[in-house]
Amino acid sequence: MSMTARHPLHEQLQAGREARLACRTGQITGTTANLASGHVQGNLAILPEKLAAAFHRFCQLNPKPCPIIGISEVGNPGIPSLGIDLDIRTDLPRYRVWRDGKLIEEPTDIVAHWRDDLVAFVIGCSFSFEHALMADGLTIRHIEQGCNVPMYRTNVPCAPAGPFAGPLVVSMRPFNPADAIRAIQITTRFPAVHGAPVHFGDAAQIGIRDIAKPDYGDAVTIRPDEVPVFWACGVTPQSIILQSRPDFAITHAPGGMLVTDRRISEFAIQ
Amino acid sequence: MSMTARHPLHEQLQAGREARLACRTGQITGTTANLASGHVQGNLAILPEKLAAAFHRFCQLNPKPCPIIGISEVGNPGIPSLGIDLDIRTDLPRYRVWRDGKLIEEPTDIVAHWRDDLVAFVIGCSFSFEHALMADGLTIRHIEQGCNVPMYRTNVPCAPAGPFAGPLVVSMRPFNPADAIRAIQITTRFPAVHGAPVHFGDAAQIGIRDIAKPDYGDAVTIRPDEVPVFWACGVTPQSIILQSRPDFAITHAPGGMLVTDRRISEFAIQ
Repeated sequence: MSMTARHPLHEQLQAGREARLACRTGQITGTTANLASGHVQGNLAILPEKLAAAFHRFCQLNPKPCPIIGISEVGNPGIPSLGIDLDIRTDLPRYRVWRDGKLIEEPTDIVAHWRDDLVAFVIGCSFSFEHALMADGLTIRHIEQGCNVPMYRTNVPCAPAGPFAGPLVVSMRPFNPADAIRAIQITTRFPAVHGAPVHFGDAAQIGIRDIAKPDYGDAVTIRPDEVPVFWACGVTPQSIILQSRPDFAITHAPGGMLVTDRRISEFAIQ
Repeated sequence: MSMTARHPLHEQLQAGREARLACRTGQITGTTANLASGHVQGNLAILPEKLAAAFHRFCQLNPKPCPIIGISEVGNPGIPSLGIDLDIRTDLPRYRVWRDGKLIEEPTDIVAHWRDDLVAFVIGCSFSFEHALMADGLTIRHIEQGCNVPMYRTNVPCAPAGPFAGPLVVSMRPFNPADAIRAIQITTRFPAVHGAPVHFGDAAQIGIRDIAKPDYGDAVTIRPDEVPVFWACGVTPQSIILQSRPDFAITHAPGGMLVTDRRISEFAIQ
């Protein structure tokens, strides 16, 4: 660290950038949960240009699961609006490379896979709104239990666009009703990271058969005075992309998000 | 009506004022539900000055059931902030006059009961936020069923002040979870008319024994895909006042509110 004075903006840039540099240099290869607290994290989806326009329309039609917070220019691995020196090829802990819908590699960078026709989409992640919930004194069960958030495929169809179609995936956090009301108020302020919940209570109403068996992540305890609260989840676009079996795609590895320089508070609508 | 041009403010004043004049002249003696749509309505509590300060503190401590939208000067029956020519002694359809906690009269005006030491409190009423919910396309069950909103005494204590203490009273509207989330978002914008709900789902958690037997108002149907959603209710201050058995008090008669010149949209916080 230099000895020059650091103003608040500098602090802010450092926190996100330091997390990215740790990913870039291979010091972090696992989850980004709790990294650079207060900074927005994003899901990554990289597609060839010929599919990118349809995927962009899909996100536009389904803003709750797919809130876009950054898009690269075609073939350009930078997204300066999310980080001045951000390099999407190196700055996540780990990637998943897909061919024809099949996972072919899980590298810690995608320099060797980058192409001039690729477009990178960064989609807001609920790790970000959890920070706002905890700042308000709410307890996030899966953080309390030291596991991943439980996620479920629903029977709620997304609006289709081009080859992209399929059901909404939701994440679940249990709260007592008073805290659930507070969580609805808080997350309403953050449409860029999935916004307000889409459902609470009876899981069967959105096609979830067994709340104890999430399709992704880990099951968490729901106490007798609590109700499960369901948010649209950034796993949705990844699930939808893979279902469409594109000839080529790259995503983040589960739990290893892009850490941005943007503060969650910058995305608040009020 | 004069032949002079009417601008929007004039329209606005007319609507609330016309409703009050109809009450003042005895044309309306029952409910004010659906009167002067879009105008805030208020619960009325009138107390002698020696009790008014403690009641004001009670409201300050319990803003969800007791959101004050207007207070008169001691002995002055006008509240110009709610209506230029408003006269609190005549402008409600019907009043209840209480001595030592007992109902002694239900007159259509209180001119004969007015005293130089009385202070009138006007407390926001949920009739107002129902307008905002319906404007968003939500269906209010008790309006659909043509009856009064069901209200329940809870086991949730209000914060006490002076002689004023007792449990929160809530009103209940059933919604499916998606509409309940929307209702939470909409009513959050209106703290002056009770704001966001205080509870949803399991009624026993707030001490309600039988949802089919409201303590005030009428029972409504709750469909299998719906949950009851509970808001702090303006009946709370009236219930609390009567429990404290003040030597003198005047309230509105159930369902017959003060119609103000203020639009509900003026009270939105965003």
